[in-house]
Amino acid sequence: MERRKVLGLAGAGVAGVAAAGAGALALTHNDAAPTAGSLDLVSETGGAIPFYGARQAGIVTPAQDRLHFCAFDVITDDRAALVEMLQDWTAAAARMTQGRDAGTFGAVGGSLEAPPDDTGEALGLPASGLTLTIGFGPTLFRNAQGKDRFGIAAKRPAALADLPKFPRDTLDAAISGGDIGVQACAHDPQVAVHAIRNLARIGMGKVSVRWSQLGFGRTSSTSTTQATPRNLFGFKDGTRNLKAEEPALLDEHLWVQPGDGPEWMTGGSYLVTRKIRMLVETWDRSPLAEQQTIIGRDKGEGAPLTGKQEHDEPDFAAQDGKGQPVIPMDSHLRLAHPDQNGGARLLRRGYNFVDGSDGLGRLNAGLFFMAYQRNPHKQFVPVQNRLAKQDALNEYIRHVSSGLFACPPGLPAADDYWGRSLFA
Amino acid sequence: MERRKVLGLAGAGVAGVAAAGAGALALTHNDAAPTAGSLDLVSETGGAIPFYGARQAGIVTPAQDRLHFCAFDVITDDRAALVEMLQDWTAAAARMTQGRDAGTFGAVGGSLEAPPDDTGEALGLPASGLTLTIGFGPTLFRNAQGKDRFGIAAKRPAALADLPKFPRDTLDAAISGGDIGVQACAHDPQVAVHAIRNLARIGMGKVSVRWSQLGFGRTSSTSTTQATPRNLFGFKDGTRNLKAEEPALLDEHLWVQPGDGPEWMTGGSYLVTRKIRMLVETWDRSPLAEQQTIIGRDKGEGAPLTGKQEHDEPDFAAQDGKGQPVIPMDSHLRLAHPDQNGGARLLRRGYNFVDGSDGLGRLNAGLFFMAYQRNPHKQFVPVQNRLAKQDALNEYIRHVSSGLFACPPGLPAADDYWGRSLFA
Ligand code: HEM
Ligand code: HEM
Repeated sequence: MERRKVLGLAGAGVAGVAAAGAGALALTHNDAAPTAGSLDLVSETGGAIPFYGARQAGIVTPAQDRLHFCAFDVITDDRAALVEMLQDWTAAAARMTQGRDAGTFGAVGGSLEAPPDDTGEALGLPASGLTLTIGFGPTLFRNAQGKDRFGIAAKRPAALADLPKFPRDTLDAAISGGDIGVQACAHDPQVAVHAIRNLARIGMGKVSVRWSQLGFGRTSSTSTTQATPRNLFGFKDGTRNLKAEEPALLDEHLWVQPGDGPEWMTGGSYLVTRKIRMLVETWDRSPLAEQQTIIGRDKGEGAPLTGKQEHDEPDFAAQDGKGQPVIPMDSHLRLAHPDQNGGARLLRRGYNFVDGSDGLGRLNAGLFFMAYQRNPHKQFVPVQNRLAKQDALNEYIRHVSSGLFACPPGLPAADDYWGRSLFA
Repeated sequence: MERRKVLGLAGAGVAGVAAAGAGALALTHNDAAPTAGSLDLVSETGGAIPFYGARQAGIVTPAQDRLHFCAFDVITDDRAALVEMLQDWTAAAARMTQGRDAGTFGAVGGSLEAPPDDTGEALGLPASGLTLTIGFGPTLFRNAQGKDRFGIAAKRPAALADLPKFPRDTLDAAISGGDIGVQACAHDPQVAVHAIRNLARIGMGKVSVRWSQLGFGRTSSTSTTQATPRNLFGFKDGTRNLKAEEPALLDEHLWVQPGDGPEWMTGGSYLVTRKIRMLVETWDRSPLAEQQTIIGRDKGEGAPLTGKQEHDEPDFAAQDGKGQPVIPMDSHLRLAHPDQNGGARLLRRGYNFVDGSDGLGRLNAGLFFMAYQRNPHKQFVPVQNRLAKQDALNEYIRHVSSGLFACPPGLPAADDYWGRSLFA
């Protein structure tokens, strides 16, 4: 039973709602007016993405176009309460990703005297490709005071060691870190926001929202079936990304393998988040040629400066007439390329953001960078160290927040729950 | 020539981009993979909305699903420079709303030695129903220091007198006001963001961004062809809105009429913006019955508490068994209803927002309220005064920003420009 159908049935017992259903149904595609916007359009891709499976959805799932990421602080020290909340979250996530209300009674089907068990703003909206992906931060294992609140410190993966401080970091602690991270991706922001908000509601008294980030316009393709989108510097982003269709590469670079340890993470992946402010006004004043040499690709096609087509291999040895490398030594493409980083690769899954203005007359815009990987200390860390030291892009960007989360494997059966491999 | 086609042609002159076009075209619908998200879907409603016409687009235009609103401060005192910028803005707006680049050469077609005249992130994206609507704030006519910088103080409409301070106002001056407001609405946030950002780029040195707001999930229908969406309290919003299909009501309540004065505003409208924080966590803890009596409608169908269907007329005289009004005296529906406000009506055109978290463990979420009207001092002001004093909703909301803009009539001919009726 989908959320957009639940209303007519669940609502039937509620005084004054007996005739419900029609209003909600009017939002689905068949009833949509030709001039309507994405609220209606998304039902075309309203198909639900399976929640249960060997891997968590939302990692190699072809990147949806909207993001709501939320980092939570656990505010209880009670392990049982935390586990119970994770069980409640899992049940709600399993429902919401299938286009259902967060709870059994839904937004309007429960008692009039009780708060509804769904907040209602997604009534009538389809699943919209919603995925919910959970990860556990270093502080869940041992908090800032060094306390092992939940008796899991011994299970902390070596790969979840804190990220080092990178050159040029200008991180704001208030929007960094977090005990638990949840990534909600969907084709409709209202659906992604609804999902996070209902998890926060269910977790009331056990977790509080540490920081949250909305994003739009995915800046990476994670599947060869997707066209490459553009970031706010106007360049195609995600051309050379790990893709869902490359299982051998995914095993090598993305999924934690048996023997990597700890066992509870086998089949999982590590997520690094970096909120990167982009000084778009400065960028917009720089000549096209400079923009292209900074990135190492041309702006139109996205081809390496040594090639013609987007997917041409870059030729790092090629020189121009003056004996200079065509792809400059400090270009982002060269420095981020696996050849310069011992073969390290990432599955990037970032989103553009605009968070109003910065109070200095400029848009507060940038890239909410997210990258999944088998071991951040062998992948993100060396790449970012190189970029932070040498990247010509640095003049135009500032890293303002950072997060690190161990995302466990998927849930194989309908009675499993987020974190069982860690807590059981 | 549309933006998604411009690349193959304009790019042909640029070294290394000769083979361009295919990459950008891949983002349009015909080439879209079946799993792709809204980036591709929007091209179904990619049809451009006419820019020129007797009325500005973006007012009665069926509300698109995404918003980027930007309030600018004019930082030059030079009238000619301001007028020239408005002319440049108009040319760019006319192009962008039709799915073209902001400037003649576009993102990649100009000189390599110059900054591009489009920022590029919308390359390959269709028009996406983009509308750009301009309005002039009170401070453009006389700034905070009382100075008539542009010699237009005498043309300031009486209807553009500053809004009064309302009971319970908790406004942040830094995100209120503004000399010029531009509303960008589209089906794709990347397209709305691109439009505002390019206007800011073109206006560099003449205007700076005072504040800007992203919104999603339009909270009002402005056309009978649209289903009623839901706000973040989970209720349908926009049921009883002025609609495009009611021309007599629009003349009465929305469009400035001949004789209202000043003449340059005839055919225009006044926009009030209010950023309203919604305390969703508190709301989510209140019983369904309480939520419904606060609004005066049921949550499922959106019917008045005295009716069964969404569009049933509320019966404010109806009493329950205990002799109490069924629609409470302090309910939002009763207090906002034209019957209680001397017939005053508004064209509401708001959007939901989530701006991360508030640093206190809660989502910074709410409604970016926008209402267009013939005279705010006869419409928004009395309604808001009543609401601010009596509305049961007040416990759950905080008004944090306010804006007022005089939106001139549309541009009748292709050589006209935003503000000519004011400056010429
Ligand atoms: C705002 C900051 C950034 C911008 C604007 C940006 C932009 C780009 C662009 C345009 C490309 C070329 C297209 C592609 O292959 O995807 C690219 C590639 C890449 N970027 Fe970034 N990037 C940013 C930050 C980062 C960071 C922080 C990392 C990791 C530490 C990173 C890692 C990569 C990698 C691994 C590639 C692919 C290189 C290859 O295999 O050829 N980027 N980036
Ligand atoms: C976060 C704040 C607000 C929320 C959650 C909210 C919500 C609602 C809801 C659910 C309705 C009923 C459905 C409909 O007819 O559209 C409504 C109606 C209405 N609201 Fe609000 N509203 C808010 C603020 C305001 C403000 C600030 C004003 C104007 C000062 C306003 C004016 C109206 C009007 C005129 C109606 C239609 C009343 C009628 O004709 O029956 N609202 N609002």
